[in-house]
Amino acid sequence: MESNKAAEMICSLCKQFYHLNWCTGTGGGISIRDREEDIAYIAPSGVQKELMRPEDLFVMNLKTDDYIRIPEGLKPSACTPLFLSCYKKRNSGAVIHTHSQNAVMCSLLFDKEFKISNIEQIKAMPNHGYHDTLTIPIIENMPHEDELIDQLNEVLDTYNQDTVAVIVRRHGIFVWGPTIEKCKIYNEAIDYLLELALKMHQYNIPLP
Amino acid sequence: MESNKAAEMICSLCKQFYHLNWCTGTGGGISIRDREEDIAYIAPSGVQKELMRPEDLFVMNLKTDDYIRIPEGLKPSACTPLFLSCYKKRNSGAVIHTHSQNAVMCSLLFDKEFKISNIEQIKAMPNHGYHDTLTIPIIENMPHEDELIDQLNEVLDTYNQDTVAVIVRRHGIFVWGPTIEKCKIYNEAIDYLLELALKMHQYNIPLP
Amino acid sequence: MESNKAAEMICSLCKQFYHLNWCTGTGGGISIRDREEDIAYIAPSGVQKELMRPEDLFVMNLKTDDYIRIPEGLKPSACTPLFLSCYKKRNSGAVIHTHSQNAVMCSLLFDKEFKISNIEQIKAMPNHGYHDTLTIPIIENMPHEDELIDQLNEVLDTYNQDTVAVIVRRHGIFVWGPTIEKCKIYNEAIDYLLELALKMHQYNIPLP
Amino acid sequence: MESNKAAEMICSLCKQFYHLNWCTGTGGGISIRDREEDIAYIAPSGVQKELMRPEDLFVMNLKTDDYIRIPEGLKPSACTPLFLSCYKKRNSGAVIHTHSQNAVMCSLLFDKEFKISNIEQIKAMPNHGYHDTLTIPIIENMPHEDELIDQLNEVLDTYNQDTVAVIVRRHGIFVWGPTIEKCKIYNEAIDYLLELALKMHQYNIPLP
Repeated sequence: MESNKAAEMICSLCKQFYHLNWCTGTGGGISIRDREEDIAYIAPSGVQKELMRPEDLFVMNLKTDDYIRIPEGLKPSACTPLFLSCYKKRNSGAVIHTHSQNAVMCSLLFDKEFKISNIEQIKAMPNHGYHDTLTIPIIENMPHEDELIDQLNEVLDTYNQDTVAVIVRRHGIFVWGPTIEKCKIYNEAIDYLLELALKMHQYNIPLP
Repeated sequence: MESNKAAEMICSLCKQFYHLNWCTGTGGGISIRDREEDIAYIAPSGVQKELMRPEDLFVMNLKTDDYIRIPEGLKPSACTPLFLSCYKKRNSGAVIHTHSQNAVMCSLLFDKEFKISNIEQIKAMPNHGYHDTLTIPIIENMPHEDELIDQLNEVLDTYNQDTVAVIVRRHGIFVWGPTIEKCKIYNEAIDYLLELALKMHQYNIPLP
Repeated sequence: MESNKAAEMICSLCKQFYHLNWCTGTGGGISIRDREEDIAYIAPSGVQKELMRPEDLFVMNLKTDDYIRIPEGLKPSACTPLFLSCYKKRNSGAVIHTHSQNAVMCSLLFDKEFKISNIEQIKAMPNHGYHDTLTIPIIENMPHEDELIDQLNEVLDTYNQDTVAVIVRRHGIFVWGPTIEKCKIYNEAIDYLLELALKMHQYNIPLP
Repeated sequence: MESNKAAEMICSLCKQFYHLNWCTGTGGGISIRDREEDIAYIAPSGVQKELMRPEDLFVMNLKTDDYIRIPEGLKPSACTPLFLSCYKKRNSGAVIHTHSQNAVMCSLLFDKEFKISNIEQIKAMPNHGYHDTLTIPIIENMPHEDELIDQLNEVLDTYNQDTVAVIVRRHGIFVWGPTIEKCKIYNEAIDYLLELALKMHQYNIPLP
């Protein structure tokens, strides 16, 4: 994705996600990679995500892990090492992180993995048919976001390429994909399934 | 409906339905028929439905079932045979398909048919008075959408003209009507009734 | 209220109410009175309420109950006699009718009256303090809306001026007020209270 | 914050909060302080908050507590003494008051304090880490808003600087902060946590 377009898309998606309660109160974040220049745009820490402008984004050289741009007065996101792991271990093109309440609630109802099958929406996930089980690993939250790195790396090393998300208990979710378009589609489909799973749980309908 | 208007309406309705969580993550779709030219506009498969433009739609000659336009790089919707059955067996002017969670949840709570009566909103359905029972058949989901065709045809053959929708278990809903305006009204009224039925179920209030 | 402004406000409020699920699928309606000319603007029957334009509204002379304008191809609302009763028995300036699911659900949980007290939002209702009980009568739905007239008239005759709404079981709610601004405020405050009452019921918290 | 900007921000935030059901039916309000001129802008009482314009706001001199501007035909908010206490005892720059149903519901489920811990969103609160407990005091509602002043002052005197909100039972919430940006972030993060707490309660998951 072109650099200007990538920066603008982070801002417009954050505005959209804000209205879904996915990144209110400075929560969540998005990073998009420009594959041609091998750089990544990353939302800053602790700001109102729905009001960000392209010039507020940090820019990192993915060959050297050095910042090319550090916007004045802003702090880099504590998620940055997590985004980089997705870029390097999965060759991702984008990562979306939200504080979705559906993800938080499912992390409180399920133990090591969230599993669901036999729902049409699962087909939006890579290489998943209607009868396949979607498995999303759940890792434990830590006081600082960068401390999640070992658990994330273990997920990225252990699960296959069709696993494109990890739920962080009592925190939210990280979703990655080859492009921001795919990443957004995965994130939407997963949140739909998490929301549906919560309703099914409420009506005592078994999930897998 | 004029062709330009039909194509634009599919795009604007998909944008609207996206915000209702009816077609997130590439789910759902709409087809509208141009009766004068006897052609149908059909949303493509696997794309972000809220971002479609008129030129992204497939166009099919309804006399020959041949595509008049195949947008480059896009796949035709697997729902296409289902849309065609509604056009041919019911002389419909439009078909709406959503992944409505209200439809999915009701398909998990009810067996062969969803039934509701004595709710004012039922009057929005064709030839239904306040005391009439609205019946929506529920069919079983299959791994591929085109495999739903036999069950859909059986519904279209067995139920009378006042039945304008079928719920697909663990999947969503198909709604048809003589025009896209009527089809949208039926779809909205049905989703309202499904949502209400779920609440009534939660509060232990009997439905019919 | 000036006539042009009244007609435009009906259209813009219906668009707004549509997104609150209060008048989807052709449900609900609004009427506003122009006191100077003593005429009333009334939304037509069976149309998509969010797409109405000022010229789609019926206009009635309130001195003679004759229509001044009958828009071509449209049917007058079956609610018209109900709107007229509010204008005549209460000297109202506007009436809002919605198919609010909060109203329908409360009509299924409560018998002859909905009652709530000790909630701050009650203060938005006329002459109601924090400790006062808001009482909204519930009448029985009938096959045709105009058949509600006797029950509505009984409410208007029996309850005092501070009662500005009636719930229709399995149907929705009618709210009236001296101006459309007041009527909208009452309608919003009531729907807030109905929604809250449903949540309180779910958590087993007593209402009055 | 500059005065023009402060007045416009009150109006645009009220419009935004209206669509979150935080200030429907004339409920809620916002005040922002202009530190340079030491004046405060305050939303009036009993108006539709989503339709306010900058010239509808009351303006108060914070050195003398005299009104600099009293908009014609409008009444000052009964919350004014509460806003002033936040400005004086906490040196706040803004106060947000909403009728959030999440706050009202939590006030019905918890006694003297709302407490939550081990949720990532808590980090948006001042000096709170992931494992820290967020405590929000709950005070009793009174027939008139200005009668809340003694209880509010006790909270402001008793709790430390990291307590930036008070829930009013059966009424709503007041949130303050050094700037309107911080105040809005706190308010959003708190409402997210209240909403989550209600869901956790429903699924029998312990809070602290």
